[in-house]
Amino acid sequence: MQLVGDDLIKVNHTILDRMHSRAPLIPQLAGHIIASGGKRLRPMLTLATTRLCGYVGERQIGLAAAVEFIHTASLLHDDVVDESNLRRGDATANVLWGNQPSVLVGDFLFSRAFQIMVQDGSLEVLRVLANASAVISEGEVMQLETLNNVGIPEEKYLDVVAAKTAALFAAACRIGAVIAGRGAVEEDALEAFGRNLGIAFQLVDDTLDYSAQQATLGKTVGDDFREGKVTLPVLLAYRRGDEDERAFWSRCIGKCEQKDGDLDHAMALLQRHDALHDSIERARHYGAMARDGLGIFPDGEAKRALVDVVDFCIERAY
Amino acid sequence: MQLVGDDLIKVNHTILDRMHSRAPLIPQLAGHIIASGGKRLRPMLTLATTRLCGYVGERQIGLAAAVEFIHTASLLHDDVVDESNLRRGDATANVLWGNQPSVLVGDFLFSRAFQIMVQDGSLEVLRVLANASAVISEGEVMQLETLNNVGIPEEKYLDVVAAKTAALFAAACRIGAVIAGRGAVEEDALEAFGRNLGIAFQLVDDTLDYSAQQATLGKTVGDDFREGKVTLPVLLAYRRGDEDERAFWSRCIGKCEQKDGDLDHAMALLQRHDALHDSIERARHYGAMARDGLGIFPDGEAKRALVDVVDFCIERAY
Repeated sequence: MQLVGDDLIKVNHTILDRMHSRAPLIPQLAGHIIASGGKRLRPMLTLATTRLCGYVGERQIGLAAAVEFIHTASLLHDDVVDESNLRRGDATANVLWGNQPSVLVGDFLFSRAFQIMVQDGSLEVLRVLANASAVISEGEVMQLETLNNVGIPEEKYLDVVAAKTAALFAAACRIGAVIAGRGAVEEDALEAFGRNLGIAFQLVDDTLDYSAQQATLGKTVGDDFREGKVTLPVLLAYRRGDEDERAFWSRCIGKCEQKDGDLDHAMALLQRHDALHDSIERARHYGAMARDGLGIFPDGEAKRALVDVVDFCIERAY
Repeated sequence: MQLVGDDLIKVNHTILDRMHSRAPLIPQLAGHIIASGGKRLRPMLTLATTRLCGYVGERQIGLAAAVEFIHTASLLHDDVVDESNLRRGDATANVLWGNQPSVLVGDFLFSRAFQIMVQDGSLEVLRVLANASAVISEGEVMQLETLNNVGIPEEKYLDVVAAKTAALFAAACRIGAVIAGRGAVEEDALEAFGRNLGIAFQLVDDTLDYSAQQATLGKTVGDDFREGKVTLPVLLAYRRGDEDERAFWSRCIGKCEQKDGDLDHAMALLQRHDALHDSIERARHYGAMARDGLGIFPDGEAKRALVDVVDFCIERAY
């Protein structure tokens, strides 16, 4: 935050400025979700990686805003798809305005992101973010296809996470090197950093869903459980459980048949098999790979800030 | 069709080829809507306008496929937004697979369109289609904002039509001149042709919704009426009606309170006030402007084909 604070203020101005439209509902609805206290993690990654690459200029501002627009568009569509009611403690846009505007305003923000990129004028940035966008929606569809399937291999689940979450982290970081014109080696290194960070971030998110700390973040405990979402803690507990326990997970997650007390029982099983603890251990592994991905860059303020992001993403589990 | 038939076969191959994905549901669902007998009107416009501009090459193939992907993405999202059950006589994707994959596969096709444009490599084409995409979603949101409002001025309604429908027609035509490198005058002329054609097309569509021919096209008569959609025939009948009639439209469309016999009564009112006939007359006006927009281009096979498209769009009303 200290490193990129000034840039982030400009990014926020650009976001407010570029969500304007002839249709008043667009800034209203987009403003609700954009203002609702998101961490701006992805745009910050673009800001910090351009800094790491020694770039001096203003291109990172617009492109960081474009990254946040893509992220926001996908959140709006996710909330419709998941029928979510709460995001960061606030009522979701689909609850306040209905599904219809949420879908359409998501489409608008997505198009607006591409307009900003076109204005920036780099085909390479457009390539990276168009690819990431396609991969994100593939990941979301793959997640739908595996929903309720407690038996999927851990690798398959990680593929989903790499696509639906980590692809945008990877792209947000890669374009830092693209903007700075640093060439393929640095681009690949930052993409790998972003991808591993994104996977670690999602695995911690999966764990937080079953953690008492959720409430303090304005989220409800057990949302994933109620939606029948297969996440890493469940995959681990399912594999480590006995026949009765597997039947329990198959009923609750597989068939989404749940009754009172099931969530408490699930929490106890996750505890018994160290599933939450070990999910965080898996996240640490990806966090370590992310850190090492920065090895080719010189030490300094920017690199330290990016390492801090890795630590922040994992430490928020505690 | 004769003019661009060979190219259209290549476009269809490109479409099938580029909707493949690691997530099997994507080609399955996208294939359903893409194969369901659409007219491929928008990609044909790109093919015919490149021909009109004397372009020789293959770039129009991929870009026409990109145009169709953007159109298909917006159809998928529209059917979710409108809660439609039928499209071109087939069950819609949202009925067959649910809203969730329809939203996500739409997002995928939209991203894929941008990937194709990036591969093509023209920032100008990207600019035109990114702008069109933003305007389309603005138009859809504006339509939501005016839904059920029978009192809106005709001009306001035409703004919605120009945005939600005509913007993609305009962009599909403009990129013909961009591909051919013909400069701003030809680009503007083709954009104007496409925009006026698109408005004419939508006004005829509005009229067909209240016409007995709908059934022969595999559509249901009165869908717009049941959804409380304000369209040009209703706007005209509302303005030309007496107090009782206006109360009728306000109840049925404004409040969406409908009972048996209302659709029949609505059809009788539309007939009494020549609202269907005069909507087609309005469409003719835009059709005439579209034709004149082609004036600066030399006569020949391509120009005749584009004039035929205008005639086809209007004649299908009869």
